[in-house]
Formats: sequence, C-alpha cells, structure tokens
Amino acid sequence: MADTGWPVCAKSLKGVILDLCGVLYDSGEGDGVAIPGSIEAVKRLKESDLELRFCTNETQATREKFVAKLQRLGFDISVSEVFPPAPAAIAVLKERGLRPHLLVHDGLLPEFDAVDKTNPNCVIIGDAAENFSYQNLNEAFRVLIGLEKPVLFSLGQGRYYKETDGLKLDVGVYMKALEYACDLKAEVIGKPSPTFFQSVLSDMGLKPQEALMIGDDLVNDVGGAQYCGMKGVQVRTGKYRPSDERHPTVIADATVDNLAHAVDVILGQRGRGA
Amino acid sequence: MADTGWPVCAKSLKGVILDLCGVLYDSGEGDGVAIPGSIEAVKRLKESDLELRFCTNETQATREKFVAKLQRLGFDISVSEVFPPAPAAIAVLKERGLRPHLLVHDGLLPEFDAVDKTNPNCVIIGDAAENFSYQNLNEAFRVLIGLEKPVLFSLGQGRYYKETDGLKLDVGVYMKALEYACDLKAEVIGKPSPTFFQSVLSDMGLKPQEALMIGDDLVNDVGGAQYCGMKGVQVRTGKYRPSDERHPTVIADATVDNLAHAVDVILGQRGRGA
Repeated sequence: MADTGWPVCAKSLKGVILDLCGVLYDSGEGDGVAIPGSIEAVKRLKESDLELRFCTNETQATREKFVAKLQRLGFDISVSEVFPPAPAAIAVLKERGLRPHLLVHDGLLPEFDAVDKTNPNCVIIGDAAENFSYQNLNEAFRVLIGLEKPVLFSLGQGRYYKETDGLKLDVGVYMKALEYACDLKAEVIGKPSPTFFQSVLSDMGLKPQEALMIGDDLVNDVGGAQYCGMKGVQVRTGKYRPSDERHPTVIADATVDNLAHAVDVILGQRGRGA
Repeated sequence: MADTGWPVCAKSLKGVILDLCGVLYDSGEGDGVAIPGSIEAVKRLKESDLELRFCTNETQATREKFVAKLQRLGFDISVSEVFPPAPAAIAVLKERGLRPHLLVHDGLLPEFDAVDKTNPNCVIIGDAAENFSYQNLNEAFRVLIGLEKPVLFSLGQGRYYKETDGLKLDVGVYMKALEYACDLKAEVIGKPSPTFFQSVLSDMGLKPQEALMIGDDLVNDVGGAQYCGMKGVQVRTGKYRPSDERHPTVIADATVDNLAHAVDVILGQRGRGA
C-alpha cells in the first residue's frame, strides 16, 4: 500500500501508541521473536519528539516479567510505558469491593497476590491458554451461576493471536463461552474498552486526535482507537489476515506492511513537515 | 403446581416424546442414577396406547452403548426408540459430501467409524467434556479458519447439564466459542432444531399437535417442541432451575415435579376421558 492517505499530518501528531504482540514481536516458544525492523523502529520513535506508550492485552505474565522479556528481545522499553489489563482490573476490584475467582495464566497470578480472593463474588478471565481446561472453565461457570448477580470481567476480548507455531484462541472466545453459559454480558477490561484507551491518553497528556494507534488487530486495536477519536493503523504482521482489508465495519486509516514501514512514513512526513 | 391447565386433552394426545438425561436419570459416575419413579413411569407409558419415543442430545456414547446403560438402570427402552444427534449428523454429511474433523467424546467416535475423515472440510462438535481442552479447541479452530467456507456442526446447543456431582458445561458453550473465534454461525443438529423434532414425529406417524414433549431443558426441549407445534412440559428435575418459571420468552405449557407426576396426569386424564 502506498503512503497516500496517511491519516495524521505531521503538525497534529503528538504521540503514538503501539500494540506489542504481532507488532513488535511474535510470541511462541521461549521469548518469541522480534519482527524484523521493529527494534530499530521503536528506537527511532523514542529518539523523536513524539510521546510513546505501549498498550497491550497481554495477560500471560506480570508487567515486570513481560517487560523483561521485551528487553531481552532487544527493545528499549520500561515498565512505566506499558499498559496491560491486569493493573486496571485490580483498580476496578478495589473500587467496587469485589473478590475475584481467577481463571488466568499461571504467569499472571503474582499480579493478584495482594487481592482478597476468599468467597469470590466475581470471575476474572485472562488469556489462560492451557489453563482453559474443561475442568477450570466448569469451575468458573459454577462460581458465576452460584452468584445472585454474576459479574464476569474479561481481560480483553480477542478472538485469536499468532504464535510462532500457529494461531491460538484468545480470551474473547472463552468470554463468549461463559456469557452464553450464564446468560450474561461480560465487562471487558483492556482493548477495545474506551476507558482503557483513555487511561493511556491521560498518561500521555494528549487528546485523542493527537494520537495514533498502531496494531495488528483490526477490531480491538484499530477499531477501538478509532471509537475513542484516535486514528488507527493496521500492520500486516501478527494476526493480520488479508480479509481484514475487506472488513464490513472497521476500516483502518492506513494499512502498512510492518512497524518499520509505519515509522518510516511518520518520521519521514515529520522531516518534510519541519 | 396443580394439574389445572394441563396442555393436551385426552382425546387429541397420541404420542409422548421424552428427553432422557434429567428426566429419566441423572448422569454421573458410572451409569448415573434413575430419578425416583421414572422407571415405573416409562413402563406405564409403554403399556398405554400412546406412541413413545426418546429424543436426546446425548453425544457421549454410541446409541447402542447409551441404550445398554439405560437398560442396566432398569428402563425398558430399545435402540430403535431413541433419537440422538450423531446418526442425524452422519446423514447430513452424506447428503452434502462433507468430511468432518471431530471434536467429540471418545465414546462417540465409533459412530463415525465408517465416515471419511481425511482432509476435513467441516467440523463437528459434540459434548466432548474433558476432550474440550485448549489444545483440542485450538485444533478445531485451525481447521475451520483454514477453510474457504467454514462449516461447523454442533450436536445440540445446551448451556449446561447436571451430573451427580454438579452442573457441567454443555456443547453449546463451545459452539458459541468457535462461532466467535471464526465469525460464523454453527448449524445445530439435535434439539431444538425443527428438522430433528420432525424426524421423530415422522417416525411416530403423528402431527405435532398430537404429541407432547417432556424435558428438563426449558429452551431446547420445551421451546424447541413448541416451535414445531407440539406442547412442551418441563419437569422440575435435572437441570431445572426455579428461574425457568420466570423465563422472558419460553413458557412451558405445564411444569410438573417429575416424570412420574406427568405420567400420572396424562394417564389419569385419559382414564377419565375414556
């Protein structure tokens, strides 16, 4: 795709929000692998005058462990720049006095160490992967169906993601399963929740129209950002599929081959604009 | 609930269709347990002049093994009287030249022994229970997402059922999961599919208004039968929950404590009517 129609002009753009998995790296065995050109692209954005944050629905590890992995892959990223759903969920629990039953990845459990989980009055599901066994899903179901007012939080609502050995089902699939089983509607914490995007914008001190979201997930990254008033760019890496470019309702402001190319366009345009 | 308002008068009633699990017995360890009074109730219906069939979404065993279990529990039932989804599914595969990838219970696999499963061009899911692992659901997902025109058959669409040790998630929950993952609509084979009910009525040689369905599942047994023009009675056994009697869209023609009580009313009324 040509650079024509690039959505944000050099003058108005003040910050960029990047999705992580499928944009910076592909997950898989061990730490996964960096997507070619993405380490350099992040470096170039950091050296620019743009605000930069990372907004992810990653829920397989604590924020610290997750960022350490990205650093090992070669990315210059710090914990304070990364926004995952778990800390946002813990804030909601506190606010509403809720005690969760957790169906999450073992790696995420330490995030909830300080949270009261006795006699649960809600259920939180994350990308539990292998922990999405029949037995564990039944257990979460039984907690919900036993509550007078069942509350289900889903850390994201993705359909699937790509690991080095193929596509894998994401938390949204199990959210839909429990919604149907219990005849309820889950509350999504993470992308594409507007509250979640707004918290990142607040941290950047920017208005939506000053920021650009770059992701591989057309609905949750691009559509979610657009719904908040940001521009949304899709990369043709990660879970991208050609049919995304014919989606009936979500149309990316631009579609580019990868992050390196997106950064070329952004910085090139600013260079010309300056 | 009193017998007032019993839905079918003695004259017009010519046949009864019974659901099995939750009406005749509760499943669980081993063969499960017969619900008190149900063995005698089936016997009394068989001795009457009413046509009797059994319509089930059971997909954990072949029809032969399943009927043998019911016989061990003490029920006078033969294979030709029982209508489960798997034989109906095999007929559909043949008709449409489809080769399935199966995500079903190990016990059901022999039903598909003669079916060509090479290079699959559709997916069939049944009540796979412990086989609903993350890995197996991923595998079914990958088959579907790799097809140009993905076809998913679901043997039933139940939310959950009751075993002796508690409620368990049913196939419908995983149907919704795969529907969301692949952005498609599954074809349901089994209750409440009108085609499925109609095949049982044809076998009985009856019109819908001449038959009564008795089940514990308000939506799939009662609602499904009503949609076909039959009357639908719910028993307060199996997966019945008090909230069923306040359901916003499905209203049973009658609700009774158990099958024995339903048969008392049916045969008592016919005695008076005769």
